[in-house]
Formats: sequence, structure tokens, C-alpha cells
Amino acid sequence: MVEYRFYHPIEVRYGDLDPQGHVNNAKYLTFMEQARVAYIQHLGLWKYGSFMDLGIIIADAHVTFLAPIHLDQPVRVGVHVSRLGNKSLTMEYRLEDGRDGKVLATGSSVLVTFDYRNEVSIPIPDDWRKTIADFEDLHEPESRKITH
Amino acid sequence: MVEYRFYHPIEVRYGDLDPQGHVNNAKYLTFMEQARVAYIQHLGLWKYGSFMDLGIIIADAHVTFLAPIHLDQPVRVGVHVSRLGNKSLTMEYRLEDGRDGKVLATGSSVLVTFDYRNEVSIPIPDDWRKTIADFEDLHEPESRKITH
Amino acid sequence: MVEYRFYHPIEVRYGDLDPQGHVNNAKYLTFMEQARVAYIQHLGLWKYGSFMDLGIIIADAHVTFLAPIHLDQPVRVGVHVSRLGNKSLTMEYRLEDGRDGKVLATGSSVLVTFDYRNEVSIPIPDDWRKTIADFEDLHEPESRKITH
Amino acid sequence: MVEYRFYHPIEVRYGDLDPQGHVNNAKYLTFMEQARVAYIQHLGLWKYGSFMDLGIIIADAHVTFLAPIHLDQPVRVGVHVSRLGNKSLTMEYRLEDGRDGKVLATGSSVLVTFDYRNEVSIPIPDDWRKTIADFEDLHEPESRKITH
Repeated sequence: MVEYRFYHPIEVRYGDLDPQGHVNNAKYLTFMEQARVAYIQHLGLWKYGSFMDLGIIIADAHVTFLAPIHLDQPVRVGVHVSRLGNKSLTMEYRLEDGRDGKVLATGSSVLVTFDYRNEVSIPIPDDWRKTIADFEDLHEPESRKITH
Repeated sequence: MVEYRFYHPIEVRYGDLDPQGHVNNAKYLTFMEQARVAYIQHLGLWKYGSFMDLGIIIADAHVTFLAPIHLDQPVRVGVHVSRLGNKSLTMEYRLEDGRDGKVLATGSSVLVTFDYRNEVSIPIPDDWRKTIADFEDLHEPESRKITH
Repeated sequence: MVEYRFYHPIEVRYGDLDPQGHVNNAKYLTFMEQARVAYIQHLGLWKYGSFMDLGIIIADAHVTFLAPIHLDQPVRVGVHVSRLGNKSLTMEYRLEDGRDGKVLATGSSVLVTFDYRNEVSIPIPDDWRKTIADFEDLHEPESRKITH
Repeated sequence: MVEYRFYHPIEVRYGDLDPQGHVNNAKYLTFMEQARVAYIQHLGLWKYGSFMDLGIIIADAHVTFLAPIHLDQPVRVGVHVSRLGNKSLTMEYRLEDGRDGKVLATGSSVLVTFDYRNEVSIPIPDDWRKTIADFEDLHEPESRKITH
């Protein structure tokens, strides 16, 4: 199982619930988004300045729902970057019960680095690449570096 | 490309937008959910009675984001059941611009039929299976019926 | 009872409902906001361009809840400007069942005209004042014009 | 200024923001609702069981917006019951910046006690009345008790 080095706690809101009495499926993406923003801020890659400077676009999102989430349940979201491509990266998420670590949902998203001013995708900026690779221990093996 | 026999129009709300000025990613699941509920109602499988009688659980959701959605954009969501399993079915969605049919996003969800009162998954009820198979023309070929 | 010259239809979404099975109270402000944006667009005062050009801030909001709103209920929101002040105006709202006109909720908001670039409140722009006064028939009586 | 004996912290979510970059007006009601539910739970009046047992309906809501709320701002919501009527009570709210106590918004709601099973309003249950009056020090003066 993936080791998560970053977790963000989420308080379930009454407003997250739907008529079936548990968290609505769309809110899982909201929880993952919140944890993603906290991860980026934790790594010092974005300073809560202009949202236009955040510079990532979601290309793809996937959620697997494993257990319903209730109002009184403390939730924590693990965030993990599993892939650093040229112009995109993959983030993985794991929603857990904060009390016992029970996995409530897993998910992933493909994020494309984007220049909002010129509206084009751009290579992952060097500081993002280095900071994330350091944090996640994602450095390429020597052999691969040689062949490229 | 899949032929969609059911579309549901969505009015984008100001409240669906996020700081980047377009529809927030989590709202795509809300749009798909709204179209899913309309589809089920359109086929006469649920009468807007008790939500506990709806009897489906989302096991998995996937969204591919192809273009940002803006406030003034009329959206329609195509809904299509592509698979009828024993205790689960797969729905596919296509978000299109209502003016020119441009595809804005695609998605799918795996839905498990569920008995809320006893909290167990159940085989797809016969009336659901027949109604959906008729609507989507999903009937099995004769040969397969014979061999099984 | 106030005469509403503008109505905007709202489709209740499954995602608007809460565990009590009807529309969550916060969504009433979302419905009023959506109708407000439509009103402003209808009067040609804003062209869905930059949201920073919209130039209004909500100073105060009030909702009276008269009846629960259900998923299958077509809703329409009446919008009416009842007061044009110097730097603010008052909008009133009425949520009605689209079938029989039954009043589901009423509300109001005080909107302050605002220059986002310089972050100061500003007098209501002349084109806004004239357009709204014409639409709502809010022109001051002659006698009042003379005495001031 | 009202003394608040109960505060509930709120983490602003990216998903709470709108295109103007700060918390959307409707979310203020969501924040107040979340603090209200926490207050009721804190006083032991509801055990997060069936939502149908919560037994209150919102009749009226009012918000005064004093300052925009940003993503990186820790928010706390003060909750205070200012009036215990026969079949209704009034709650007041104050949204503050968690760092310096700056008031961001104030609000109030009128809540009607309600029997969902029989769909009628009911007198405030005795345990609610006693518990809230004790917590808020809302006991009637002796003189009033004598005259009634």
C-alpha cells in the first residue's frame, strides 16, 4: 500500500450530506481538492496569492467509494504524487477515518501545468519538480538518467 | 462514438464557479448525478418518493475534463447505460455544449443496486433490467443465451 | 403584494437536498444569486465578461422560509429592485412553485456598488440607475424632484 | 456586544470560493449551520442519530456581511441562543477571524421546533429549554414567573 507522507484533516459538514444521510459523492472531489491545495501550500509551491498563479488544470479525476462517510466521522485525506511527467503529474488520494485509519475512498487526478495568461500547457516548473521529487522521493534511477 | 438516447439540460449556476472563473471540478459529478436521476425518472424506475427507495450506491466515478465550462454556456448531459451486470451497472455520461454539441467532459460511474433497509447489495431488480435493456437495446444475442 | 416583472426558473438538483430530503437552507441564497445574475444580464448591465467587472458586493441578506422545496418541484424566482440609493440598492426575491405560484420563500439583499480595482464603494453607475429605474418604474415623483 | 459561550472553527475550503476569489455568500449560511449543529451536539441535545430526530426547521435567516473571507483565513463561528419562545427560538451567530477576533459577519436564524413524523410544530421540548437556558443563562426573572 502506498505510503502517504502528507495528510489533511477534513471536517464533514452537514451541508456535505445528501438525502441518503451520508456525504454526497461529488463532495469526495471537494475533499480531495482541499487536500491537494493544502499539499501544494505545505510544500511552499503556492502562497495563496492570485488563484491564476496556481497554474494547474485537472484533466482527469477518479474516485473509488469504499464506505459511506457520516457527519460525526473525522476524515483525513492522504495526498501523494505518484508520477511527474513532462507537462502533467498524477496525484493519488486516500480518504481515511481519522480514528482507526479505515480506508473510506481512494482516488487520483491527472494535473496539467498550465500558463493561464497565455492559456497553454507548460512543462512542470523546475521548482515544482524538484520540491515534489524531494518530498516524495521520486528521483529517477541513475541508469535512466544516463540513457536520456 | 456512443449514441446517447437521453440528454438532460443543466443550467450552470454562478455558485458552480470557482476562483478560476469556470465550473469547479466537483460540480461535474453533480451535473452527472442530476442527469442520472433524471434518466432514472424518465424510465419510470423511481417516482421521486423516498430517497431510500432509490436503491443505488455509487462504487466508482470517473471524469475526463476536456474543456472548461463557463457561466453562459448551456450544458446538456448525455446518459447511457453501457453494462448491466448481476448486482451492478455502468453508466456513461457526456457533457456537451448545448449549442454546438462540443464535448466538454466524459465520465462514467459504476452503480451497485442496494437494499437500504437490510444494507446489502442485491441483484438488479427485474423491472430495472428489462426497462434499461429495452431503452438501451442491450439485449443479449441468442447464441449467448443458449450457451449459458 | 409586490409585482415581479422578472422571473428566473431554477431546476432543483439532487445535490441541493440535505438529509431532511428537501432543499438545504443555504441553497436559497444560491437560487436568489442565480436569479440576480440573470436579472442583471437580462437588463444588459453585465455581459458575462470579467467577474471583476460585475461590481456589486452583498452587504446584507435575508430569507424567510415558507415551505420546504422538493426535488420534483419547478421553482421560479421573482427579482425586483425596490430601492435605488446612492451607493447601494435593495433587491427583493420571491421563490414560487412554477406550477401554481405558491410562495415558497421570500428574501432580500442589500447590494453595494463597488470598484474592485480600487476596492472602494462607488455611486451606482448612471446606466445601472437609469436602466433599473426604467424597468422597475422607480422614477421619483415630480414634486420630490422640485423640493430637492 | 453579545458574549458568545460557544465557538466552532471552520476551515474555509477552496470549494467555498467563487469567481471573486472569496467565500461565496451562500456559504455563510453553511458555516452558521455547521456551527449550529455543533452547538446542539455540544449541549447533548442531539446524538447524530436520525436526522429526522433533530426536529428543527429554519423559519428565517439573516446575514450581515462585514468583510470578505479568504482561503487562508481561519474562521470561528460564535453561536448564541438569544430567545426561547414557545415553539421557536432565535440563534445569533458571529463569524470571526480566528487570529484576531475581527468580526467578518453576523447573522441570526429563527428555528421552529418540529415533529417530522406528524409534520406539526411543537413546543420546545423541556430538556432543550432547560439545557439551553442553563447554558445561556436565559432564566426568567422571578417577578415574571409570579405574574404568569
